[in-house]
Amino acid sequence: MKHEGNMVIAQGGGPTVVINQSLVGAVRQAMDYPQVNRVYGAIRGVAGIVNEEFLDLTQESPSNLEKVADMPAAALSSTRDKPDEKYCREIFDVLKAYNVRSFFYIGGNDSSDALHIIKNFALQENYDFRAVHIPKTIDNDLVKNDHTPGYGSAAKFVAQAFMGANLDNRSLPGVYIGVVMGRHAGFLTAASSAGRQYPDDGPHLIYLPERVFDTDSYLEDVKRVYEKFGRCVIAVSEGIQDSAGNPMITQLQDKVETDAHGNVQLSGTGALGDLLAQVVKDNLKIKRVRSDTFGYLQRSFWGCVSDVDREEAREVGEKAVQFALGNDEDGSVTINRTGEYSVDYGYATLEEIAGKTKYMPDEFINQEGNDVTPAFREYVTPLLGSEWLRTHRLKAPHVKK
Amino acid sequence: MKHEGNMVIAQGGGPTVVINQSLVGAVRQAMDYPQVNRVYGAIRGVAGIVNEEFLDLTQESPSNLEKVADMPAAALSSTRDKPDEKYCREIFDVLKAYNVRSFFYIGGNDSSDALHIIKNFALQENYDFRAVHIPKTIDNDLVKNDHTPGYGSAAKFVAQAFMGANLDNRSLPGVYIGVVMGRHAGFLTAASSAGRQYPDDGPHLIYLPERVFDTDSYLEDVKRVYEKFGRCVIAVSEGIQDSAGNPMITQLQDKVETDAHGNVQLSGTGALGDLLAQVVKDNLKIKRVRSDTFGYLQRSFWGCVSDVDREEAREVGEKAVQFALGNDEDGSVTINRTGEYSVDYGYATLEEIAGKTKYMPDEFINQEGNDVTPAFREYVTPLLGSEWLRTHRLKAPHVKK
Repeated sequence: MKHEGNMVIAQGGGPTVVINQSLVGAVRQAMDYPQVNRVYGAIRGVAGIVNEEFLDLTQESPSNLEKVADMPAAALSSTRDKPDEKYCREIFDVLKAYNVRSFFYIGGNDSSDALHIIKNFALQENYDFRAVHIPKTIDNDLVKNDHTPGYGSAAKFVAQAFMGANLDNRSLPGVYIGVVMGRHAGFLTAASSAGRQYPDDGPHLIYLPERVFDTDSYLEDVKRVYEKFGRCVIAVSEGIQDSAGNPMITQLQDKVETDAHGNVQLSGTGALGDLLAQVVKDNLKIKRVRSDTFGYLQRSFWGCVSDVDREEAREVGEKAVQFALGNDEDGSVTINRTGEYSVDYGYATLEEIAGKTKYMPDEFINQEGNDVTPAFREYVTPLLGSEWLRTHRLKAPHVKK
Repeated sequence: MKHEGNMVIAQGGGPTVVINQSLVGAVRQAMDYPQVNRVYGAIRGVAGIVNEEFLDLTQESPSNLEKVADMPAAALSSTRDKPDEKYCREIFDVLKAYNVRSFFYIGGNDSSDALHIIKNFALQENYDFRAVHIPKTIDNDLVKNDHTPGYGSAAKFVAQAFMGANLDNRSLPGVYIGVVMGRHAGFLTAASSAGRQYPDDGPHLIYLPERVFDTDSYLEDVKRVYEKFGRCVIAVSEGIQDSAGNPMITQLQDKVETDAHGNVQLSGTGALGDLLAQVVKDNLKIKRVRSDTFGYLQRSFWGCVSDVDREEAREVGEKAVQFALGNDEDGSVTINRTGEYSVDYGYATLEEIAGKTKYMPDEFINQEGNDVTPAFREYVTPLLGSEWLRTHRLKAPHVKK
């Protein structure tokens, strides 16, 4: 039988809250294919392959698999390793030694690059082998995809965070800055807009890596909003850059009175938010200025899951196995939007996905570059799932003095 | 009829995600008392009283009140004003002018102080008047209470954040530091422990303001955990202090190689987390060290609510009205734990509550001062509500190399 032998699955890069849905979807789907003898899970992504560290997932109980599917973060553990040619050779040699006939890698666009190299070794040696990429990234920056598994849930977290932060800021007015993950693509930061409802709801300003960040314009924007509403809620991507393409975290340090230093490490530090707050304090003389950096909670917070994202992540794992073992194809599963709202799953070649980044299209960003458009709202809303994200206010009349 | 006239309700201090339950509980309960003509909501706490800014909540629809009850942050808006004697006199004069016969203030321990002063003016003038404090604080630091409304939900947020962060850290190992709100009391930071389940689950170290923070011990602790598990998850209260009682944020700056400066502003800045991470990097030469400061999400995140907390916050508002209007008492509603788990509501005098802070009792903190005890776990678990906070792992056997 074609591809008769074992299968390996691994998880790479930054985890999401639904990455285990894809894992379990693929593992359980694989059980339906008689050519698969054993399903091995590599521990710590490709690093686990070269170190020959595998779990025999064929011996995992279905009910425990289902429980694990609902957990955030990579159940098999992940890695930041980006294999070069030599590393890929080592991977391939181990896979061959374990009679592995299909390899599924759940990851961002780096992982499809590695898969592509590994597949070429198989072709050169005429080794019967399928290499399949299963997409995931909260950044939503994979080409050939309407969106990626993991994004919807992270977007829901960001939307809920700003819904609460906006109400909190309305209770105790001031300037509030929330720093959101996203080094190159602004999709996650843009999701901060999803809970806006009333005309004065924040975030009032949204700054994305797709547009040049100019400190003077920022200060003018904040001043204008603050004068209008007596408060200002701001969503900022950690990846905002100046006109020369330098991260703002390095540029802002010259603009504030403190002499703080820091490495240009974007996540896992509150430095950018603190600097953006300090600029407002120093220049606009607004007293109550606060910043939060949402950090790892965006991709790992237990229990904040979009049901649409969860279901799609699951199906993407299942589809990957069907494409590879049922249709005998290599490649990367893609999500295509159809109707309002439904999706179809397709397949792209590994070359089409590898190493490329999708950015926010122009029609999602307003003219001034400080907010999103209604088109983005239409795009993101179904991805947040069926839970209706709404806020409510008192409507009672004022008492005459 | 005694107390015939109007009623005022207001919200003060930092909001919570269930503070509007107390508001709505009190407002709807008040409708049952014929001596209450109008229920006024003061906008921005006591500031709204002196400025005569009231909403006529008698004209609010019950169904909208119920929707607002579920929203985070103060629906009436809040204030940081801490009224002195003169300010209290102004409040009292406005209340009298509006024929207000009962005043309910939802707030922390500062608010009961103001209520006490206002009540004394009423007594001096023989003005028929009830002053009632409705407790709320995510810090859980009110005396005479087993716990306070708002704490359970914030604790659930912190627990869920650390459950996810622990799994994320297990996926991509390193040192992770989560900075939690709590200037003087460590209850919220301690809640980081609530989701621990497996022997190697983090947070592995918990630092509270109730114990002196020593940088050398901290480094030894981190080194030991990191050597044991290859990773380390740490929960730190923003209020940790050195042996002289100085906030660590000022002390740590001398210990790190960067020359960062910052105001001693604990919330709304990532500085403490960044400094604690830098100390580890500099001294232990661990490469992957990340810090998150949970910030305002802890008290405002939309949708993360403990049902137990929600129900209690509601009842506390209802009880306040019953005590004041039914039983003709001033004071502060208290929550007393009975059984495993149930509560009774009691009543304390305003003097008993005002200006006092409850700290973590010694039996909740381990000998080394770097973790909580099982007694704390027993204390906190029912407050997190009926949603079972659990994580699951793969249990499949390793494949022989």
